[in-house]
Amino acid sequence: MTITVPGPTLGVVGGGQLGRMIAEAAAPLGVEVIVLDPTPDCPAAPVARDQIVGDFDDPEAIGRLAERTDALTYEIELADPDHLASASEDADVPVHPTPETLRTIQDKFAEKEMLSAADIPVPDYRRVDSVADLEAAVEEFGAVMLKARHGGYDGRGNIPVHSVDEAEDAIREVGSLDDPNALAETFVDFEREVSVIGVQGADEVRTFPVGENVHEEEILRETIVPARMSTATAERAQTVAREVLDALDGRGVFGIELFETPDSEILVNEIAPRPHNSGHWSIEGAVTSQFEQHARAVLGWPLGSTKQRAPTVSANILGTVDETQPAEVAGIENVLKSEAAHLHWYGKEQVYPLRKMGHITATAEDGGDVTDLLESTRELRDSLTFQ
Amino acid sequence: MTITVPGPTLGVVGGGQLGRMIAEAAAPLGVEVIVLDPTPDCPAAPVARDQIVGDFDDPEAIGRLAERTDALTYEIELADPDHLASASEDADVPVHPTPETLRTIQDKFAEKEMLSAADIPVPDYRRVDSVADLEAAVEEFGAVMLKARHGGYDGRGNIPVHSVDEAEDAIREVGSLDDPNALAETFVDFEREVSVIGVQGADEVRTFPVGENVHEEEILRETIVPARMSTATAERAQTVAREVLDALDGRGVFGIELFETPDSEILVNEIAPRPHNSGHWSIEGAVTSQFEQHARAVLGWPLGSTKQRAPTVSANILGTVDETQPAEVAGIENVLKSEAAHLHWYGKEQVYPLRKMGHITATAEDGGDVTDLLESTRELRDSLTFQ
Repeated sequence: MTITVPGPTLGVVGGGQLGRMIAEAAAPLGVEVIVLDPTPDCPAAPVARDQIVGDFDDPEAIGRLAERTDALTYEIELADPDHLASASEDADVPVHPTPETLRTIQDKFAEKEMLSAADIPVPDYRRVDSVADLEAAVEEFGAVMLKARHGGYDGRGNIPVHSVDEAEDAIREVGSLDDPNALAETFVDFEREVSVIGVQGADEVRTFPVGENVHEEEILRETIVPARMSTATAERAQTVAREVLDALDGRGVFGIELFETPDSEILVNEIAPRPHNSGHWSIEGAVTSQFEQHARAVLGWPLGSTKQRAPTVSANILGTVDETQPAEVAGIENVLKSEAAHLHWYGKEQVYPLRKMGHITATAEDGGDVTDLLESTRELRDSLTFQ
Repeated sequence: MTITVPGPTLGVVGGGQLGRMIAEAAAPLGVEVIVLDPTPDCPAAPVARDQIVGDFDDPEAIGRLAERTDALTYEIELADPDHLASASEDADVPVHPTPETLRTIQDKFAEKEMLSAADIPVPDYRRVDSVADLEAAVEEFGAVMLKARHGGYDGRGNIPVHSVDEAEDAIREVGSLDDPNALAETFVDFEREVSVIGVQGADEVRTFPVGENVHEEEILRETIVPARMSTATAERAQTVAREVLDALDGRGVFGIELFETPDSEILVNEIAPRPHNSGHWSIEGAVTSQFEQHARAVLGWPLGSTKQRAPTVSANILGTVDETQPAEVAGIENVLKSEAAHLHWYGKEQVYPLRKMGHITATAEDGGDVTDLLESTRELRDSLTFQ
């Protein structure tokens, strides 16, 4: 394959921080990015070639994006797979990962079925189409997490159910009694939450080192790389991640969230068909970032090295505010003064409680201790205050 | 000092590759960039917030840039110091490095005088205001390089003069017989050309490790970091670079080009009051890039670490064409397939002979040999072909 620059133009449905970081990574490759996002002047807009203002499920806007670009992808699961498929066909431009993969991952039950069919270990789960289904699941497993099949993220649409008495109310919270459209999953008594960022290229697969993820209120707070787990378990996580990539169709980066159980088993929790928050460390911590890899993979270009450059921790800057307000953060001088930390501000105009506003990545000297690095990076992040 | 994001907007006179890489580095810091450049859709335009189309010496355009930004800088010596000074005053925004420093550096004779006054070692030189001045210099030194005081770069405006017979013709080439406006410099029999990228912050000075520069036809081809020189000579280069920074006024990054003589003396060749081609390696090779440092310094923010992350080589992609044509380069797959190399394409629409179109940076494993890395990076670069 002969590749030339100026390269193709990449169309990205979604212009949030992921679209922004894809655009930042694509520019040095000679690849320009146009994003589609409903928010005028979205985070990606100032660094992308252009923004089309439109909804993620607006067929006309997706069509215009396809007409102006040479390949399509998305940075948000809310992208509409049907409209992506028709826009791709009409404009004769590829879309990756495939709309079929997006459709599967959008439906948490279908995702689990796909993984199970490929013999990939997942927590026990049951389809919930009625209150009776949920009651049966609770009786079988003792307690379950009820999850809406569609639309939940960062823990939204997830309701813990500890007894059959709670079944009706839980279903009302995720859907309707007539049509729960949900699944019930056993609680995994995990030792550790980890993730592997995988890249499916045109004819090669690569994975980044395992990251260890710290969640609170089901929102990612920090990622530690390498994960503080045994080599054998890390290798197992890599194997499972490669099995997941094998089971998925279409090129691109996938964020594969995993549980490590107390007996060192690896179970797949969730898959994101796009660069993932737990892969942000790769900008400074790996030879090639997940964002550059995503652009390369979607375009069918050779993938870059996923080798880790240094022990690395990333920490999210979340909206520590009580209500929506203009975004302004003080204390940045602490990050700038650090010899190890890098700021990534996403350029969002408004902050609301727990909104992802930016992140900090810090790298240690070779052989440096990641637990110390985690502490110092948290301190830095916690020194920031919304005004 | 309390620093908040969203940060200030930075105005940059010049929107070439340096402006582009400043914009790429500033975005994650929450700093937006507006560039001023006469070429519509200049290299920086697609990644900057906005471009003002105007000449580097257009007072009205510089004034508009100042009105829309919180701090001014420039990425090209052709920026007009007088207009920068008045725009800065009128709009009450700082400009760095100071117009006075820019004015001094724009005049190669004034630059040498400033360095000499500060006891900084430079090659012997004489002011040339007449043919007689040049003849006297040739008689004194045997042979000299005649340099136009203003406007030369990448070797343009430099004429070697080996005998008094050549004096008149040489002066006609750099200026007029009435007003040569030139200087004559001894040829330095150097062992090595090196450079130090220095950063002058609000109240701190930092320098990057010494880079070794390979020039051909007076245009930089490759930079090797660390330079292949003795520790003592590298330390001497650092000392001289810090003396240069002390002698200069205004914050920002300075590219300080040096000669190492056969007896390990260090002489200052030229100074650029901006990020420098020989500092591009710092994007992948150092903790903080020269572009991020420049943004931090101009804004008066704390500087980042200049620590080197790995042995690094950068190689320029120059226009290997016979005449001006649309820019299209094939062979990019070779760079993408490398486990060590990173592409930086500048997005210029036209290529002409020896135009700087992009660069490749490659890093080695710790303890890797930079001479091997230089060879492999050159091979990669030379595998690229203009179509």
